[in-house]
Amino acid sequence: MALGAGPVLEAGNMKGHAMELNERLETYLARIEPLKTEFLNAAQQRLDNLTKPRGSLGRLEEFAKRYVAIKGNLHPRIDHKTILTLAGDHGVTEDNVSLYPREVTPQMVYNFIRQGAAIGVLARFIGARLYVVDMGVDHDFEPMEGLIIKKIARGTQNMIKGPAMTTEQALRAIVAGIEVVEIVKNEEVDIIGVGDMGIGNTTPSSAIIAALSQTAVKEVTGRGTGLDDKGLAQKIKVIETSLQVNRPDPKNPLDVLAKLGGFEIAGITGVTIGAAAHRIPVVADGLISTAGILIATEMSSKIKEYVFPSHNSVEIGHRVMLDRIGFAPVLDLSMRLGEGTGAALGIQIVEAAVRIYNEMATFEEAGVSDREEE
Amino acid sequence: MALGAGPVLEAGNMKGHAMELNERLETYLARIEPLKTEFLNAAQQRLDNLTKPRGSLGRLEEFAKRYVAIKGNLHPRIDHKTILTLAGDHGVTEDNVSLYPREVTPQMVYNFIRQGAAIGVLARFIGARLYVVDMGVDHDFEPMEGLIIKKIARGTQNMIKGPAMTTEQALRAIVAGIEVVEIVKNEEVDIIGVGDMGIGNTTPSSAIIAALSQTAVKEVTGRGTGLDDKGLAQKIKVIETSLQVNRPDPKNPLDVLAKLGGFEIAGITGVTIGAAAHRIPVVADGLISTAGILIATEMSSKIKEYVFPSHNSVEIGHRVMLDRIGFAPVLDLSMRLGEGTGAALGIQIVEAAVRIYNEMATFEEAGVSDREEE
Repeated sequence: MALGAGPVLEAGNMKGHAMELNERLETYLARIEPLKTEFLNAAQQRLDNLTKPRGSLGRLEEFAKRYVAIKGNLHPRIDHKTILTLAGDHGVTEDNVSLYPREVTPQMVYNFIRQGAAIGVLARFIGARLYVVDMGVDHDFEPMEGLIIKKIARGTQNMIKGPAMTTEQALRAIVAGIEVVEIVKNEEVDIIGVGDMGIGNTTPSSAIIAALSQTAVKEVTGRGTGLDDKGLAQKIKVIETSLQVNRPDPKNPLDVLAKLGGFEIAGITGVTIGAAAHRIPVVADGLISTAGILIATEMSSKIKEYVFPSHNSVEIGHRVMLDRIGFAPVLDLSMRLGEGTGAALGIQIVEAAVRIYNEMATFEEAGVSDREEE
Repeated sequence: MALGAGPVLEAGNMKGHAMELNERLETYLARIEPLKTEFLNAAQQRLDNLTKPRGSLGRLEEFAKRYVAIKGNLHPRIDHKTILTLAGDHGVTEDNVSLYPREVTPQMVYNFIRQGAAIGVLARFIGARLYVVDMGVDHDFEPMEGLIIKKIARGTQNMIKGPAMTTEQALRAIVAGIEVVEIVKNEEVDIIGVGDMGIGNTTPSSAIIAALSQTAVKEVTGRGTGLDDKGLAQKIKVIETSLQVNRPDPKNPLDVLAKLGGFEIAGITGVTIGAAAHRIPVVADGLISTAGILIATEMSSKIKEYVFPSHNSVEIGHRVMLDRIGFAPVLDLSMRLGEGTGAALGIQIVEAAVRIYNEMATFEEAGVSDREEE
């Protein structure tokens, strides 16, 4: 596949370039630190002194504690929220894996920018900035407010015939995701919700979890935007064939990503790595977002601590991904839209947690009797 | 038990008075209408035209549709949110069913009023007014901004020895809850979240669901604020004895409420009935809130349509209550605090749903290709 002169890096010696990109990726992965115990402990201590039975706010307490430790700040705030919706097209749409035509991807990008899509509404509702990132849409966008162009190519190759991306493309997409974090970081960001847009992209996402977890394809494949039984059977067959054709190495997340993934999924991997390296909490969305995050957590187990789960998608592969990472979702809304919609609602949960941590009175401040010590 | 001259109604002939209260209750119950199909259908039609795969926002779509139909308005808004935290004390605390001393109930009421408690923080976060309702706290409060005094008595009787309340007290508490809705309605309210405060009140709540569903007490009884195994065994025994002593009629929700309930629980029943009668959506909280709502839905099955579930409490009886009503919770945060904290987060979900309904672009408006018709 001919690489277009994408905005990320100049074309050059493919082999040498891939190695160079890989070194950059390794540098970021090496920067990610485990959360500091002293912050976790100090946050726990404060939570235990607040006027409520110990632990009674459950996951809100866990979220607050983790947020404090990620930030390395005992009085952290959430003032600046950003949602990144990464978009890309997929060669596999040739094989009828979606109900919607491929041109819906760029149409929806315009709809995001005009705030008419669900994620536009929810971003506005929670007071977040929304950026759409063109990672590989099959359409040339003019520069627009709210659009970040990091196009690797106009869609991936069809994975049923061979790798969806070259290793270099996958690396370029990951590095582009890291760079997106650095772009939004320039204008302050306390938390990032990460979503997706791409007709056909539940197919690569299910393929990724099937490959990594060596689970039967039918146990991780859902109806996407609404396939009927025949469509679902076709989608399962496409994924099974793609796995046979590509033989991805389940121990090598980059190999799995390149062979089965998509540009937006690789970009989400990069956003997750970049955010963790810069100590910015990330909130997961549904199947596609979690596929990208999963690739990141397979690359470095420390990344998990920087990510907050949000909802449990209708897509059955999502729960398998969440289990593999070790996440329990906090929202159960039978959603299956993507875009970052679940992440937006998840950001509100993290924000509620941080407010609780910062603003509740202690037993002493409120003059409330604590339980008798045992 | 001597009835104090509570602020709800003058004392009088007990029998006649109970009958009169019952008639008022029946009048409200009779006013509750099933949701209108034309609003449900019109809302569904709009939801189906928005730029997303049909049904892909799951419970958000269900919530939006129901909100439209409750309001009887195709362009409803949520501008005015109110959280009601109803408080009461319980005679059963004599029997060591809680880790916290009874004086914590009034102490926490002051903490609510000063916004230092979790519900104060979350009410502020979601932009809701918070009112604390003294339904039966064992403390005489001076009038305070944010406090509504509807005290029936300074705590219930100990249900292990006989009925927690007389039928008349239970009816007075329900009617008081209805009146609270009418008070907050005077200053505009679009949605009400309903929570509780009362040391010991998981005990009557578990007793209520055990009685109504004829479930074994141990299957609906949890650790409340943090009982150890011995404390839990004691709590189960207290509930079992109370059921034997009182023999509530499982077919008669008022009988169950009076014998096993509490003033705040009865008040929550009244709030739910009053809200449904006035077409105001109610958002449930955890175990105690749902106990009150459950009594209301047992009195009239139409009430369910006016109530939105929020979270799934750690308290095991909560899920049994939700199942009995037919609610699936949307938040799973391992919370067990009450106060309305889960309801506050639930209000945000309803609000997100209504925003989606109102603000998303249709396929036509956005110029996005819809799926091909089958």
